[in-house]
Amino acid sequence: MIALSLVGIGTGNPDHLTRQGEAALNAADLILIPRKRGDKADLAELRQALCAAVVTNPGTRVVAFDMPQRDSADPDYLGGVHRWHDAIAAVWHAHIAKHLPAGGRLALLVWGDPSLYDSTLRIADRLARRLPLRVSVVPGITALQALTAAHAIPLNELNAPVIITTGRRLREHGWPDGVDTLAVMLDGDCAFATLDPAGISIWWGAYLGMPGQLCIAGPLAEVGAQIIQQRAAARAAHGWIMDTYLLRRGG
Amino acid sequence: MIALSLVGIGTGNPDHLTRQGEAALNAADLILIPRKRGDKADLAELRQALCAAVVTNPGTRVVAFDMPQRDSADPDYLGGVHRWHDAIAAVWHAHIAKHLPAGGRLALLVWGDPSLYDSTLRIADRLARRLPLRVSVVPGITALQALTAAHAIPLNELNAPVIITTGRRLREHGWPDGVDTLAVMLDGDCAFATLDPAGISIWWGAYLGMPGQLCIAGPLAEVGAQIIQQRAAARAAHGWIMDTYLLRRGG
Repeated sequence: MIALSLVGIGTGNPDHLTRQGEAALNAADLILIPRKRGDKADLAELRQALCAAVVTNPGTRVVAFDMPQRDSADPDYLGGVHRWHDAIAAVWHAHIAKHLPAGGRLALLVWGDPSLYDSTLRIADRLARRLPLRVSVVPGITALQALTAAHAIPLNELNAPVIITTGRRLREHGWPDGVDTLAVMLDGDCAFATLDPAGISIWWGAYLGMPGQLCIAGPLAEVGAQIIQQRAAARAAHGWIMDTYLLRRGG
Repeated sequence: MIALSLVGIGTGNPDHLTRQGEAALNAADLILIPRKRGDKADLAELRQALCAAVVTNPGTRVVAFDMPQRDSADPDYLGGVHRWHDAIAAVWHAHIAKHLPAGGRLALLVWGDPSLYDSTLRIADRLARRLPLRVSVVPGITALQALTAAHAIPLNELNAPVIITTGRRLREHGWPDGVDTLAVMLDGDCAFATLDPAGISIWWGAYLGMPGQLCIAGPLAEVGAQIIQQRAAARAAHGWIMDTYLLRRGG
């Protein structure tokens, strides 16, 4: 039996880790850390540094593994994602067979929170078809919370709803009906630029919680171009970027 | 100048507190804890216990204050909320004048996260009109994250949007257009019972993260009545209840 603990670690500030997360990492026999070849955004170093800072149990082994790559040119987007998740589950399985042949406690560090635009729970479902598995989740700070904290703003207006969506959906479907607040994640290409900016405000943040945190807020008509320009410059300088934003209409 | 730190403390598990939250509480000169007369759900004891467990700075004072009550019979819902927030800001101001006459660092413990269906940021805006104030936010684990962690499920489906809404809105407006996943908060009256349950699944949780945590999941048609019954029984036994749920259509 493998007891798999998925530990939300927040968005790049090691102090986002909760006391529960710290305990879960120290209870693990094995922590697996993904490494993406040639990808500066794999954040493997940040995960390694986090483990070095909080894991005090000498029985906990921290092992890096090479992460399978998704074929981003695959025209079948959802099918490609499913095949990629299958490949990751197979790699996890191989490392479990090697390092925990008699079973034990495995922990994985999940960026943000395991519930929100993260695949780890779906990959764990695949692993459960290969071996006896018990999954537990330790919640973590999401990029949305880091964003609203950085700007010191509420996510919702009084008694009002919020949609959490993706850049891809915003680009393809436009502003959804019935809500005035959108939180946009996984947007690699500034989908806000496809909207008519009249009456819309934006709160944008990149590298949230990290030393290089960037924040821009204001009417979309006034700051949209500045965000696009700063985002491109920061991405070029770092070699990668992680960002998210809130859009609010009216008010 | 008052430096006000709003610290998200999660949903009742002291181990939801982040390392950043722990540091912010220990950096405070004063921590104010609300106390609601005759209300078992004020959770003042839990906040006191949290401070006792993590505050090691002898210079940090923990002071309880009587929380003004909202007139829930006021037919002007939004107006009543605004007047209530004014009253709370006035009470904070009086305590600051008494305990931090020369300025200093004030921390407030916020249930869940300060961004999500919480009024503390709005009350802080009012306080800023009364005195020089610098606000910072420490993100915390929300009830939604505690819910999805307890059920070990993702909040969103692959690349799909999620609406976060309130029981009041679900009751008044029905299922919103364009989304298959609803996260419902602030529902004192089981608004899910107003929906046609066909094709809807529910993941419900109460006292999330606490020792008395309750979780029920399944097709709404099968478990809806059970949730209503268990909720009423738990509320009667505890004298109060805090709960939230996720609804998913199709799939």
